[in-house]
Amino acid sequence: MKKRVCAVIGSRANYASIKSVLQSLKEEKNCDLSIVCFSSAVLDKYGATSTLMRRDGLETAKEIYTLIEGDNPVTMAKSTGLGLIELSSTFQELKPNIVLVVGDRYETMSATIAASYMNIIIAHTMGGEVTGTIDESIRHATTKFAHIHFVACEDARERVVKLGENPEYVYNVGCPRIDIVKNILSSQEINLDRDINTYGVGALMDLRKPFLILSYHPVTTEYSDNALVYSIILEALLSMEYQLILLWPNSDAGSDKISSIIRGTREKDKHRSLRVFKNIKFEDYIRLLNITQCLVGNSSSGIREGAYIGTPVVNIGSRQNGRQRGNNVIDVVVNKEQIAMAVAKQIEHGKYPSCEIYGDGTSAEKIWKILQIANPPVQKRICY
Amino acid sequence: MKKRVCAVIGSRANYASIKSVLQSLKEEKNCDLSIVCFSSAVLDKYGATSTLMRRDGLETAKEIYTLIEGDNPVTMAKSTGLGLIELSSTFQELKPNIVLVVGDRYETMSATIAASYMNIIIAHTMGGEVTGTIDESIRHATTKFAHIHFVACEDARERVVKLGENPEYVYNVGCPRIDIVKNILSSQEINLDRDINTYGVGALMDLRKPFLILSYHPVTTEYSDNALVYSIILEALLSMEYQLILLWPNSDAGSDKISSIIRGTREKDKHRSLRVFKNIKFEDYIRLLNITQCLVGNSSSGIREGAYIGTPVVNIGSRQNGRQRGNNVIDVVVNKEQIAMAVAKQIEHGKYPSCEIYGDGTSAEKIWKILQIANPPVQKRICY
Amino acid sequence: MKKRVCAVIGSRANYASIKSVLQSLKEEKNCDLSIVCFSSAVLDKYGATSTLMRRDGLETAKEIYTLIEGDNPVTMAKSTGLGLIELSSTFQELKPNIVLVVGDRYETMSATIAASYMNIIIAHTMGGEVTGTIDESIRHATTKFAHIHFVACEDARERVVKLGENPEYVYNVGCPRIDIVKNILSSQEINLDRDINTYGVGALMDLRKPFLILSYHPVTTEYSDNALVYSIILEALLSMEYQLILLWPNSDAGSDKISSIIRGTREKDKHRSLRVFKNIKFEDYIRLLNITQCLVGNSSSGIREGAYIGTPVVNIGSRQNGRQRGNNVIDVVVNKEQIAMAVAKQIEHGKYPSCEIYGDGTSAEKIWKILQIANPPVQKRICY
Amino acid sequence: MKKRVCAVIGSRANYASIKSVLQSLKEEKNCDLSIVCFSSAVLDKYGATSTLMRRDGLETAKEIYTLIEGDNPVTMAKSTGLGLIELSSTFQELKPNIVLVVGDRYETMSATIAASYMNIIIAHTMGGEVTGTIDESIRHATTKFAHIHFVACEDARERVVKLGENPEYVYNVGCPRIDIVKNILSSQEINLDRDINTYGVGALMDLRKPFLILSYHPVTTEYSDNALVYSIILEALLSMEYQLILLWPNSDAGSDKISSIIRGTREKDKHRSLRVFKNIKFEDYIRLLNITQCLVGNSSSGIREGAYIGTPVVNIGSRQNGRQRGNNVIDVVVNKEQIAMAVAKQIEHGKYPSCEIYGDGTSAEKIWKILQIANPPVQKRICY
Repeated sequence: MKKRVCAVIGSRANYASIKSVLQSLKEEKNCDLSIVCFSSAVLDKYGATSTLMRRDGLETAKEIYTLIEGDNPVTMAKSTGLGLIELSSTFQELKPNIVLVVGDRYETMSATIAASYMNIIIAHTMGGEVTGTIDESIRHATTKFAHIHFVACEDARERVVKLGENPEYVYNVGCPRIDIVKNILSSQEINLDRDINTYGVGALMDLRKPFLILSYHPVTTEYSDNALVYSIILEALLSMEYQLILLWPNSDAGSDKISSIIRGTREKDKHRSLRVFKNIKFEDYIRLLNITQCLVGNSSSGIREGAYIGTPVVNIGSRQNGRQRGNNVIDVVVNKEQIAMAVAKQIEHGKYPSCEIYGDGTSAEKIWKILQIANPPVQKRICY
Repeated sequence: MKKRVCAVIGSRANYASIKSVLQSLKEEKNCDLSIVCFSSAVLDKYGATSTLMRRDGLETAKEIYTLIEGDNPVTMAKSTGLGLIELSSTFQELKPNIVLVVGDRYETMSATIAASYMNIIIAHTMGGEVTGTIDESIRHATTKFAHIHFVACEDARERVVKLGENPEYVYNVGCPRIDIVKNILSSQEINLDRDINTYGVGALMDLRKPFLILSYHPVTTEYSDNALVYSIILEALLSMEYQLILLWPNSDAGSDKISSIIRGTREKDKHRSLRVFKNIKFEDYIRLLNITQCLVGNSSSGIREGAYIGTPVVNIGSRQNGRQRGNNVIDVVVNKEQIAMAVAKQIEHGKYPSCEIYGDGTSAEKIWKILQIANPPVQKRICY
Repeated sequence: MKKRVCAVIGSRANYASIKSVLQSLKEEKNCDLSIVCFSSAVLDKYGATSTLMRRDGLETAKEIYTLIEGDNPVTMAKSTGLGLIELSSTFQELKPNIVLVVGDRYETMSATIAASYMNIIIAHTMGGEVTGTIDESIRHATTKFAHIHFVACEDARERVVKLGENPEYVYNVGCPRIDIVKNILSSQEINLDRDINTYGVGALMDLRKPFLILSYHPVTTEYSDNALVYSIILEALLSMEYQLILLWPNSDAGSDKISSIIRGTREKDKHRSLRVFKNIKFEDYIRLLNITQCLVGNSSSGIREGAYIGTPVVNIGSRQNGRQRGNNVIDVVVNKEQIAMAVAKQIEHGKYPSCEIYGDGTSAEKIWKILQIANPPVQKRICY
Repeated sequence: MKKRVCAVIGSRANYASIKSVLQSLKEEKNCDLSIVCFSSAVLDKYGATSTLMRRDGLETAKEIYTLIEGDNPVTMAKSTGLGLIELSSTFQELKPNIVLVVGDRYETMSATIAASYMNIIIAHTMGGEVTGTIDESIRHATTKFAHIHFVACEDARERVVKLGENPEYVYNVGCPRIDIVKNILSSQEINLDRDINTYGVGALMDLRKPFLILSYHPVTTEYSDNALVYSIILEALLSMEYQLILLWPNSDAGSDKISSIIRGTREKDKHRSLRVFKNIKFEDYIRLLNITQCLVGNSSSGIREGAYIGTPVVNIGSRQNGRQRGNNVIDVVVNKEQIAMAVAKQIEHGKYPSCEIYGDGTSAEKIWKILQIANPPVQKRICY
């Protein structure tokens, strides 16, 4: 009998983290894959993930509107509640054997609780990592509900086991994003210069010349400061002479304020070589990471994909605290001078050698092998 | 400035587990206590907890209807989602410094997630224990969201620390239910015989003669079997010649089926000395535990209050697995003969000496002392 | 292209009112019928309507839990809100051309608003009637949202037109319940005596002897009095010497109190020839109406099916005020003596001749003919 | 005893329509006014209505996030469901004698259904009018739920009575917006020129020279065309040589597309004398209406405030169809040439004399007088 696997995607980042797995499961004869999109994943404003997926050949079984406007901690909580209500109905209808949940964003708890209470096996990717935001609690709580753990690095595997999970069901399969990265970097060159200038807004980029990338997401528990932090980082980068690519923040509480700073900067500083992307294509992003002088901000991609690619990264603030990292990352606090100095240092160093701590590009096939044989009890029990 | 503490009560059992703390906080000058009742705690059908509280002098700030009818895993999940939506609005309005959540029932996650996402300090009682039901995952996940842990026994303290919580914020204060037990047992005798026969339905009980108590709650992950299990236990007890007190199950998925078995037994076996209580008064219950020949079932009260009181207990099935227990408990599987034998053995043994593993009756004062000084960071971080 | 019709069923009464239409639409080649059950229609407690439908060969496309426990005006409103959320998602997925809504119960507004806001044509049955409860406002508001009106009598047709609806889309097709009634009464006799005693609880009924039927539903806006009213009616009927069949009330606010009176009466008056049905089979009910000495209460079936069958009816209180009625109905206020007198009078009169004011048993075929050709604009406009 | 009046505000337009009444009720000794803001009224993005109210001295009792992101018919319906859930809890807590609902936007149904099902008297302003959008059905359905009708013109009064409402409870009090208009126009001149150039974005306006105002809101049932329609209107106006003030559309489905056209026009046509206001101050708006050469679009303010002020108006499309209007309005279909011609004609004509069909500026005091004495039965009954 086919395994009915239901993958729940709540954001564009979610999708990027599981895309190779979805593409792989879709091709397997013995897998009946349903993809459910909800929260920011169904909204144009946050990258139209569900549309993107269809374009990638991944049909969605459901697209559910659950994100409550307000962009603040109250609406994050309420949106999670609404997602929980609707995903319960969804699982009642789809009757999956396994629910596949990804990562640690707030809406992840909607799928996790619905599946857990409905006695459905939960497979969770990217557990066991440590970060400095609300995601931290969500990730470990999800681990306590999940039955099968697909962790991305050794560090994470050890942590999940320490959390009292049965080691038999904790698998270091690497990060599925690396599958995509490997695939992109091994595929034929595209004309990245041309492509990158056909979307986004702002000045034209000349990728033969040095450029920096800024990708900074609001930190929920430091909520009130996000706008200030963002301004400081921008100032640091604008004080240097390089071209600058800005990536739009995700939909966490605080993103609206950052968005308005981005708009403001564009209006004020019209002659700067600055280009803004609301939803950069992942493929373009990876190719940019492969050639940028430095990625700046607090995106996990610097740590994770950056390690495999060898991208020089300046990581700012607490958001990625505790994530296992390769040599390619310099960490700094939120300080204009320190940021500028670290960026300068990375530019001088140049690209790093590839490092496989987050996988070797074969996560998807490992995951499907395990999903076919793993048979954890639905009633969990802490191991100590 | 006063501490604004918001206690969230979702069931009658919740209330019993925290009552002494609420009564204590209410009297403290520096504490501004708000009590929010929701889920089964506002419904007459499940014991009219909010009404009970008012009678105990505890005014509720809000009473919110969130329980979706259906009594099954789907509605447990959906009810949790609805609770999450409404509690978010509630916390937005009340702006507590601390949210106090109790135990491990499914609706607990509503309060936990709302508070966590809204950056409010969560104090959690009864974490770190181990049981064999869905509560298990909920309890440990709640621990991963909570900032201050009030555990009930040493065993639990160690487990919460192993889960990566900062030991500085894990306090073994004993179980607050023991405060109430101590108070009841040290207060003047009431005429229990008379009182117990004024409510509930069924035959009159003569408490000078031997009697058994059955308190069995549905086990969510073994959902389909609850009715059968209950029938087997009932048969075992009805095969003995003692008076029998049946306590109605709580509102978890599966309770409707058990309820109909109880009704059926009453109709079939009219001449049995059987009395059924939908919502026994806690005081009466404690006094009954103090004199019963044996408590049978899977209620945590046998393990917890039973240890302090010295009640002989026969604990059935997986629901209390892993809970630290005193000598007063005999564990059996669901088997008619084994249940009957264990009950016979307990009757022969008689009452046990008091054991303080779950506290000495001073939890409430310990908790308030800690709440005044504990100042954990709102942004948590796993300790390994 | 096939018409995609989505019928939304929220209660057992809903189903009975539209069953013949559903069975007819299901057989039509050019109709793609989806049946959605929600609210009390998915709950065993209220008659397991969705199960019943499957047994009648009508598969449901969705069964959604939306009823919030509490049985009071607050939960009626909240349940409607939850239904609206979930039905919106449902219509988004099913993309019906027409949503078929039935009658005037509170949950009807969930389907009506979802469809209206989503620009889907609404066909509404049973508009234009007048009653003395909250249903009154719901029914007329639904008319103001609906595009195609299938009214059950001439009186109702005129009223819908007066409400400013385009007469072109107001069709007096009779009441679809009459289709079923006609079918039942023209089908072969079953052994009703035997059947009726195999379910329900209470004394055995001997249908060769005289018997009364009591069917009383709580009146929402007179909410606080429902229990009292019910007691008075019961006393009146118990003062007479006839066998008595009691039908359980529907799930409106107030039903819990009535339920407990029914239970109480059964316990007190054990030797009375009294039989209680939680969910009587519609077929049995119609056959009972065909032979009962008198139907008492405030059910619309007395007015509607009663007219066609010729059942003597004593209608109590305001609930059916303003409904067009045949000669078979005597109206009384809530007064023990008047109720008893009216019942006595009806018993003396005996059965009435059939009257077709509510249709001749061909509603379903009329409705399908109209659904195929009616093409109202989705943007409505009042006619004056 | 004080009347507890709960006013529910769901949008900035709502507030403008009831502001004079709220200010008046707030001052009345015998009125205990609670203001509840929800839906777009609590969101900065849509004008931060609740913040505005506090600035106007009107404290809100609750601010509830209920708007689900997506800006489409599905989310309009779901947001209404979420509003219904939360407003039910709100009314349960506030226990108002009267709920005051305003107008006919989709979220109005949340308050209307909650109050109606909870047996609370509903007072509704602005019923009985006719328009060409989804608002049409909502307005008349709200009338069918409301108990006290405060209509704004004679035409509307007659229509509400025709809808079967008891004429005794239908009061033509004029439109409360006119109270504000009267007050603004009779207060001292401010330096409008200066003020208007301190907010909004775009070119500086010189109000001594001719200028046009464009205020166009998406039409829900013509949803797919809104972007096109807007482009056509803009072209017509940009072909003329006058200064142009653009007002941002409200949050109905479709507004996102119009917003992006506005942004696009600003980027393309940088040298045009064009100024865009997301949330123009009502006072400024009224003063602008008092001196503009012509108001273009489909805003009700042209018909209503325009009549009292004498503003030349070109009304486009179906949105205001059927609204009683003064001589100041020319209606046109969506056609570039016709729009341009009508605007030219209005500019030639110049200002019109004031007309009191929508009130004389004393609505608020009339409403409070009526609220004190009107005592309609909570159980409504159609009058025919």
